[in-house]
Amino acid sequence: MNKLFTFKKSNLFNMRSSLTLALVCFAMLTCFAQDSAFIRKISDEMLRNGQAYENLRVLTKQIGGRLAGSPQMYKAESWAFELLQKSGADTVWKQSCRVPRWVRGGKDEMWSSEIVSSNNPSRPDARLIKVPYDVVALGNTIGTGPAGVSGELVMIRSFEELEKRKDEVKNKIVFYNVPFNPTYINTFLAYRDAGSYRTQGPARAARYGAKAVVVRSLTHAEDNHPHTGVTNYDTAYPRVPAVAVGIKDADKLALLLEKGKKVIVTMKTYGYFLPDTTGHNIIGELRGTRYPDEIITVGAHLDSWDNGEGAHDDGAGCVQTIEVLRTFKAIGYKPQRTIRFVLFANEENGLRGGNKYAEEAVNKKEKHIFALESDAGGFTPRSFGFTGSPEQYQKVAAWQKLLAPYGCAEITRGGGGADIGPLHRALNTPMAGLMPDSQRYFDVHHARSDVFEAVNKRELLLGAVNMAALIYLIDQYGL
Amino acid sequence: MNKLFTFKKSNLFNMRSSLTLALVCFAMLTCFAQDSAFIRKISDEMLRNGQAYENLRVLTKQIGGRLAGSPQMYKAESWAFELLQKSGADTVWKQSCRVPRWVRGGKDEMWSSEIVSSNNPSRPDARLIKVPYDVVALGNTIGTGPAGVSGELVMIRSFEELEKRKDEVKNKIVFYNVPFNPTYINTFLAYRDAGSYRTQGPARAARYGAKAVVVRSLTHAEDNHPHTGVTNYDTAYPRVPAVAVGIKDADKLALLLEKGKKVIVTMKTYGYFLPDTTGHNIIGELRGTRYPDEIITVGAHLDSWDNGEGAHDDGAGCVQTIEVLRTFKAIGYKPQRTIRFVLFANEENGLRGGNKYAEEAVNKKEKHIFALESDAGGFTPRSFGFTGSPEQYQKVAAWQKLLAPYGCAEITRGGGGADIGPLHRALNTPMAGLMPDSQRYFDVHHARSDVFEAVNKRELLLGAVNMAALIYLIDQYGL
Repeated sequence: MNKLFTFKKSNLFNMRSSLTLALVCFAMLTCFAQDSAFIRKISDEMLRNGQAYENLRVLTKQIGGRLAGSPQMYKAESWAFELLQKSGADTVWKQSCRVPRWVRGGKDEMWSSEIVSSNNPSRPDARLIKVPYDVVALGNTIGTGPAGVSGELVMIRSFEELEKRKDEVKNKIVFYNVPFNPTYINTFLAYRDAGSYRTQGPARAARYGAKAVVVRSLTHAEDNHPHTGVTNYDTAYPRVPAVAVGIKDADKLALLLEKGKKVIVTMKTYGYFLPDTTGHNIIGELRGTRYPDEIITVGAHLDSWDNGEGAHDDGAGCVQTIEVLRTFKAIGYKPQRTIRFVLFANEENGLRGGNKYAEEAVNKKEKHIFALESDAGGFTPRSFGFTGSPEQYQKVAAWQKLLAPYGCAEITRGGGGADIGPLHRALNTPMAGLMPDSQRYFDVHHARSDVFEAVNKRELLLGAVNMAALIYLIDQYGL
Repeated sequence: MNKLFTFKKSNLFNMRSSLTLALVCFAMLTCFAQDSAFIRKISDEMLRNGQAYENLRVLTKQIGGRLAGSPQMYKAESWAFELLQKSGADTVWKQSCRVPRWVRGGKDEMWSSEIVSSNNPSRPDARLIKVPYDVVALGNTIGTGPAGVSGELVMIRSFEELEKRKDEVKNKIVFYNVPFNPTYINTFLAYRDAGSYRTQGPARAARYGAKAVVVRSLTHAEDNHPHTGVTNYDTAYPRVPAVAVGIKDADKLALLLEKGKKVIVTMKTYGYFLPDTTGHNIIGELRGTRYPDEIITVGAHLDSWDNGEGAHDDGAGCVQTIEVLRTFKAIGYKPQRTIRFVLFANEENGLRGGNKYAEEAVNKKEKHIFALESDAGGFTPRSFGFTGSPEQYQKVAAWQKLLAPYGCAEITRGGGGADIGPLHRALNTPMAGLMPDSQRYFDVHHARSDVFEAVNKRELLLGAVNMAALIYLIDQYGL
């Protein structure tokens, strides 16, 4: 009897569980089909009617480079505010934060003087000629002023070498010649390795008495454009002027130095800080219909370096963010959760916007369930990098199949973005970063070649498709 | 006893099979690790020392467009022959084939005449002005000659519409205005859909008495460059001149026609055929050390349209093919099977090279175990398309994990290439095609913008890395 009962019960259980399983499977398949169809709808709308490319044209061509505190920053803020309104946000507001105001101040120059013998028989004397190098002052650096700084170049290929040769750099100009490692498939790894020579190199050379620094540009490009970017001084040592030099010129200098030639260069830069000023994160919001207190953030940074148009970095992310909003409105999607479209201030040389956003989220006790950033260029999307708990990762990774047809065939562990990092650290908010194909990013990153023409319309839009799809899935299922 | 014996035997069997399984697993892991390391070696060599980009510069800038039969074709053949030798082929030879020789013959032109009233008060009369459209004659078309052809445009948006309106096109100029479908993620699908208006459109319009044809360019591009490509006449009907028009101009014309305006255009083209001439497939070979009779082909087509530099189509595939050879030699790889590096003649307007290669393979009773083609542009590699038996596909698909770190994260069913198609059909040789990211391909395909500058060095090289890796795996394990 007991046994029979058990048998029956287990039978019943099996029947029930089979039924449950079948229902779950059916529900899952239905969800998958529904989600798949909805993402197709997003994609069709963007690829047919997307405005991201034309919006980027305005941002890059009518406003251009827009460093924190510059007049262009204010123009870009107004542009973003109006565009978020026009694109259908329920509310749009400006979140104030103090931003640094670094000013380039003039045309960066560097040259060496070389003695050449004249080919002109009527002027047989050797003459001194100026050999110019294509340079750009690093962000946040002090200038040399019009008098310039002259000194002998000492080529350094690693910080280890700097430590060994620290006695040789006093009163010299340190030339960090650390090429991008071409063997990485993901170019961000090359940037990670060589990047510290830009961010820390000037400070470390100043510690040993160097009077200025030249850094090989952080790029794989086949051209000679110099690439700027922020450097961080060490308050314990003097600030020294620092420039990045184009890689063809870096190779030319290296060749001379390797031959044992003494190379004396003169550098003129004019960088300085004006007092901090007020900048703004520009925020548009779609209010959640069901869980309005649960906030999903999607964003990019509105500021850019001044020497290009900030097209890939990060105009692309800005117009993609707005495209997600525009598309949700265009297809009539009413999110369950509150979605915030945030264009952050001052990512490049201060991160004050990202910090402010997190600070206010903490102060207002907001519930942030997810944040997504696009700040790796407007190229063909390939994956998302996700940072969250293993359970959250499992959930997100299961959506790979839904995203794969649109490019993001993979969701990898780790990733996010500079601007949403503070929110993640403050509130443990899970975060993700769009990872487009990285091959061309450092060709233009922080260089004068980061212009509208370097962006492909469809690649840009496909990034936005994947962003919208991920936001939609998280809005539907939470994390 | 019997049972015991069985038990023992099965135990023994289990032990044996466990051991076998363990050994197989170990062997597989070892192979995976070895293959993985070898592919890394290929990648490092190419990304550090790759010559593909500089070779492409020579092909595009010193030779340029190289249509079958043209003087540039012969220059390109010599270039390829020497480069295959220099890159380390055991033997290099030319395989002759008769190729068509279509000549553009002059500058393609099209304009409409519009009446405008002058703004100049001293010349108040209305005047006739020429409104030019950016056009290029389709490949293999007849010319209008210097007299040109004038006629009224009839806009046709599908072959169904043509059939319905067949009585309206007599003595008119048919304007096929079929845009690329932007909603496909893979742009080759848009090309497939709209492509037939270029290949069959002129013949089908001629059947109903049209005197010339204008085809909307097959592109997603944001510019107005016209895109050429082959068209096929129907021998039962007269040949009519046919041009492709840039898509901005196509939109302009469509707007006028949609408003009900009568648009009369004049077209001048000068295309004609000279007698067939002798072209060549240029073939380099690495002789197999173990199975020299088993041939693996890797190739691309050397010819290109005349209106650009044939950089992506298919200079990229040519230099990638040669890069595979150079790299195998540079890292000292001695293939087990014979590898043929083939630069095919006349893909664009005849396919005589591909046909010849297959014909000779049949005649010589060669054993072709695999063929690979790169003819979809020198962009970031994303997948291989494979055509073969289900068993062969299973084998190849298992290598996805080895290729994924280098871009080809997927091996899909179906694919190959125009030039290796005849070999596949003749000998049932399994074949594959490299599928790079397709977003930018049709921006430049068959247009004047298909130039060296449109190719990114690292994207080009990564394509070659994936090709070499696949060739290596097939060489090691057969199919």
